[in-house]
Amino acid sequence: MYYEDMEQLRKLDRERIRLSQAAAVLHWDQECYLPPEGVEDRAEQLAVLQGLAHEKLIDPRLGELLDKLDEDVPPAVPPAENEFPARDFLRVLRRDYGRARKLPGDFVRECAKAEGLSQAAWIEARKQKDYAAFAPHLEKMIDLARKKAEYWGWEKTRLYDGLLDFHEPGLGVKELAALFGPLREHLQGFLKKITAQPQPEGAFFHQTYDSSKQDTFCREVLAGLGFNARRGRLDLSAHPFTTTLGFNDVRITTRYGKNDPLSGLFSVIHEGGHAFYELGMDPSLRSSCLAEGTSMGIHESQSRLWENVIGRSRSFWRPWFPCLKKYFPDQLGGTGFDEFYRAVNTVIPGPIRVEADEVSYSLHIILRFEMEERLFAGSLTVNELPAAWNTAMKDYLGVECADDAEGILQDVHWSMGAFGYFPSYALGNLYALQFWEKLCTDIPGVEEALEKQEYGLIHNWLREKIHRKGRSAEPAVLIKEITERELSLESFLRYIKTKYSELYGL
Amino acid sequence: MYYEDMEQLRKLDRERIRLSQAAAVLHWDQECYLPPEGVEDRAEQLAVLQGLAHEKLIDPRLGELLDKLDEDVPPAVPPAENEFPARDFLRVLRRDYGRARKLPGDFVRECAKAEGLSQAAWIEARKQKDYAAFAPHLEKMIDLARKKAEYWGWEKTRLYDGLLDFHEPGLGVKELAALFGPLREHLQGFLKKITAQPQPEGAFFHQTYDSSKQDTFCREVLAGLGFNARRGRLDLSAHPFTTTLGFNDVRITTRYGKNDPLSGLFSVIHEGGHAFYELGMDPSLRSSCLAEGTSMGIHESQSRLWENVIGRSRSFWRPWFPCLKKYFPDQLGGTGFDEFYRAVNTVIPGPIRVEADEVSYSLHIILRFEMEERLFAGSLTVNELPAAWNTAMKDYLGVECADDAEGILQDVHWSMGAFGYFPSYALGNLYALQFWEKLCTDIPGVEEALEKQEYGLIHNWLREKIHRKGRSAEPAVLIKEITERELSLESFLRYIKTKYSELYGL
Repeated sequence: MYYEDMEQLRKLDRERIRLSQAAAVLHWDQECYLPPEGVEDRAEQLAVLQGLAHEKLIDPRLGELLDKLDEDVPPAVPPAENEFPARDFLRVLRRDYGRARKLPGDFVRECAKAEGLSQAAWIEARKQKDYAAFAPHLEKMIDLARKKAEYWGWEKTRLYDGLLDFHEPGLGVKELAALFGPLREHLQGFLKKITAQPQPEGAFFHQTYDSSKQDTFCREVLAGLGFNARRGRLDLSAHPFTTTLGFNDVRITTRYGKNDPLSGLFSVIHEGGHAFYELGMDPSLRSSCLAEGTSMGIHESQSRLWENVIGRSRSFWRPWFPCLKKYFPDQLGGTGFDEFYRAVNTVIPGPIRVEADEVSYSLHIILRFEMEERLFAGSLTVNELPAAWNTAMKDYLGVECADDAEGILQDVHWSMGAFGYFPSYALGNLYALQFWEKLCTDIPGVEEALEKQEYGLIHNWLREKIHRKGRSAEPAVLIKEITERELSLESFLRYIKTKYSELYGL
Repeated sequence: MYYEDMEQLRKLDRERIRLSQAAAVLHWDQECYLPPEGVEDRAEQLAVLQGLAHEKLIDPRLGELLDKLDEDVPPAVPPAENEFPARDFLRVLRRDYGRARKLPGDFVRECAKAEGLSQAAWIEARKQKDYAAFAPHLEKMIDLARKKAEYWGWEKTRLYDGLLDFHEPGLGVKELAALFGPLREHLQGFLKKITAQPQPEGAFFHQTYDSSKQDTFCREVLAGLGFNARRGRLDLSAHPFTTTLGFNDVRITTRYGKNDPLSGLFSVIHEGGHAFYELGMDPSLRSSCLAEGTSMGIHESQSRLWENVIGRSRSFWRPWFPCLKKYFPDQLGGTGFDEFYRAVNTVIPGPIRVEADEVSYSLHIILRFEMEERLFAGSLTVNELPAAWNTAMKDYLGVECADDAEGILQDVHWSMGAFGYFPSYALGNLYALQFWEKLCTDIPGVEEALEKQEYGLIHNWLREKIHRKGRSAEPAVLIKEITERELSLESFLRYIKTKYSELYGL
């Protein structure tokens, strides 16, 4: 019985995944190619597909099979799919199914409707720089998020833990506070030292860079990094993203700035890092719920590893800077390598998270985590939020927000009810460096390889240790297994302090 | 009860349409942007979507509602959607539902499987120019098509009628033979006269035309014709097609030939004609089974009207030829208008249908219709087919097929089991000219309008008379209503003989 039931379960799971992938195609098209007046039809098409995918996830037959398979003991040697991690599959699917089943249909519909209204209100409020217009929606989204965590079975005092666990299994308020508290203090102090130093000029950023040349350069870099154009694409969209449309179809997007030859490129490398993860899954996981990143934080570690640790390093740019110069001889002909490298790594704290440098970035995240924690603990109200935000910005980053648009209203996440999501960005930094230190120990000569534009060994290490496992290994298990210790600040701080002390002569 | 039931029925219909549109997005992406290795996942995604759309079409609740609504009499004044043609909706949906319900699930699956094998075999056989390798698959597809017509309830002696009716409601073997017999004789005789005349040179076709300039020109023409880029797109694909992804999202594709500045453009105008039809539906039909072309023949009349009747006319090219010259001054600078116009309308019979001129084209179709008719009547076997084909090609067009690839194996249709489809191409010509004659009577000065690049009055006429009705008017009703007579040869023959007698000095 075991194998028949398992086969049946995998079939149900696969159909749901196929529907989600179909929805992803529609979403990709919407961001990249949809004619303006097609949005209304598209929204209805997506609603139908997502509704059907949800129906399939809460199908009681799935629950029955999960129950039966829980009791059944598989024969010692499975006949066919001997490489498929069946126990992990059951654990993960049981979690997904359980979470989805616990939410009443009416509640799911209420959330979808509120989310639509809230996002529309946020867009308008940001345009008008008017937090007050958005506040009632934020209140509503917090309320719904609380209810969701309650439905999931979290105690009233630990609702935020439930939301955090959804994005990063195993890491709650206590664990994050223990990481983020000291991290904030270190970064705050270090940032003060840096901002006391003279800044590099980077005058070449204030010129014009033809978009189609940027595009050609980006495609050259992406191919050079090993992105397989037979298994993916690069397109343009207003906001860069990565999406998985199939085991052999992972697509990334970017956009180009007229006066900045690098922001488009760093998006390409960042999304490329996400794509390498998605493309590195073991074939046995194909079209199952395991063929995804194991957590938001681990996913973000891959994008940040490529974008920052590799993509903003000296060794990376040694061969690529001359190549970039060939595309823009007029703009960059007079720029020396060191000047360029310093400009790529300029630390200037500003109000906007997505434009932040490596040193400031985590402070933006910690601020958001602390706000969320207090909102859910009830020690901060929605009305008090903007003042608290602005005070913390000043305190942590030394930055004054000119208005709500570049302050509290800058991110889309809360308008979508995605509380507990932000921490994964900072966790990504920590994971990335802890992996990277181990990688550098395992593979001697990584810098030399980067200077020769050889990325194969790095890919192999990441694929073998992380990518191929998908969701079969939980993040806490993964970091421990690979680096032989729990997630900590050490590697990240070591990296930041070494790199930027040298850059700023500290 | 009536309105509640109707609302419920429309909801079921709408969900099915949304799924079909989602499948159309995936299919469009597959033809235009899918990374090569993504095909396998895509096939599975499409199978899931199409399976669900079919499930929704044969949902017994749909049948129950159709039955109830058949008996219910609607109140005299409908409260809301007073413009929605509810009776037509019931008639069309009842037909779609009935057809789908009559096919057993096992049979549908057998067809899908056989079709896959048959198409693969056809691709390989055409490559190898080896009809014998494809013959057993053709036999199978004919057998399945017979069965399908039987399931639909057609008598054993009238199975081909059933297939014809599926593509063009109301036109069977008898009606088509009555049209196509005389048409063949007229065209055969006229073609002989033409081919006895000296041919224009058209030397400018043997030069090189930059694809990106062709593309810019095509987009200029498409916009000039009134294609609204906010409600559609033009992309590139191996085979040009039109697809409807939503009420406000109709997309066309083309491809450019290096040595031919016009084949890409004529595809754009042809597909543009299909798109105008799809974009012209009345808003009340939105997301219902009525928001489609009413038949293949009527659809083809719209594409052929724009491509040939308008797109290959003197008046059309008066303003566009100077514009084309600007894009290609080196290649076309020395070409006079008359020389160009003659080259655009050269009549040279050849073996390939899709490359045929206006005079030859219908003969290719009539040949296929006659072959199909004899295959289904049992007066021709699959083994005898190539010889019969080659004899007819020689007889009707004076053409010798060099091999099976440019003969019997040239078209994809039969490999997909799409028997009864070909006639709609020739019917398209007949419908187009019968509409056009009426249009020219209703709107004086059409030629002058074309010379001024004014297409608005033509669009308005077509939209009002044809497009906005979608499937609410059957083709036979439509042609009678608009032109006050049944479909006949007269207008088409008048057009062909007038235009080409002048061109060839007959």
